[in-house]
Amino acid sequence: MAERLTADARKQALGAIPGWTEVQGRDAIGKTFVFKDFNEAFGFMTRAALVAEKMDHHPEWRNVYKTVEVVLSTHDAGGVTKLDIELARTMNTIAKLTAT
Amino acid sequence: MAERLTADARKQALGAIPGWTEVQGRDAIGKTFVFKDFNEAFGFMTRAALVAEKMDHHPEWRNVYKTVEVVLSTHDAGGVTKLDIELARTMNTIAKLTAT
Repeated sequence: MAERLTADARKQALGAIPGWTEVQGRDAIGKTFVFKDFNEAFGFMTRAALVAEKMDHHPEWRNVYKTVEVVLSTHDAGGVTKLDIELARTMNTIAKLTAT
Repeated sequence: MAERLTADARKQALGAIPGWTEVQGRDAIGKTFVFKDFNEAFGFMTRAALVAEKMDHHPEWRNVYKTVEVVLSTHDAGGVTKLDIELARTMNTIAKLTAT
């Protein structure tokens, strides 16, 4: 099972994935993605959903039209693990490919 | 443009779409859908997203694994319109077809 990252390891990992920050009051990381429209936002979500399902590691996310707020944490570990860092990095890649 | 429903019309419409209720503190309606797993939850979202895009009327929604919390309101009208009722009804149909 993936283990919780130490505060130092988490901070270092976050430094390498632009836009992701620690979520206030929770052991979690988050980012708000803003796209051009709903088509792009949901396209991003669909690609990310396929990756998440394959990883068996799922995001908490909220979508309002062109905006997608994502929070990542590993339930079983009670905090942020390398799975969250991996999914965050992949989401950044997908978002970059999605945005026109 | 779709017009805001009166309180009476909204209450009557909600009576015919199981599970949907008025959102506290907002002129909006909401429902939390619970599925078997992420596959079902995101399958539901995907079908609903296609309908929403075609209607050009989009939900606010939050997904955590097998749960999808939906809030509907018509931004331009500042409240609940027949578009929200129509989308709510369609979401119930899709959810029924999605759940195994």
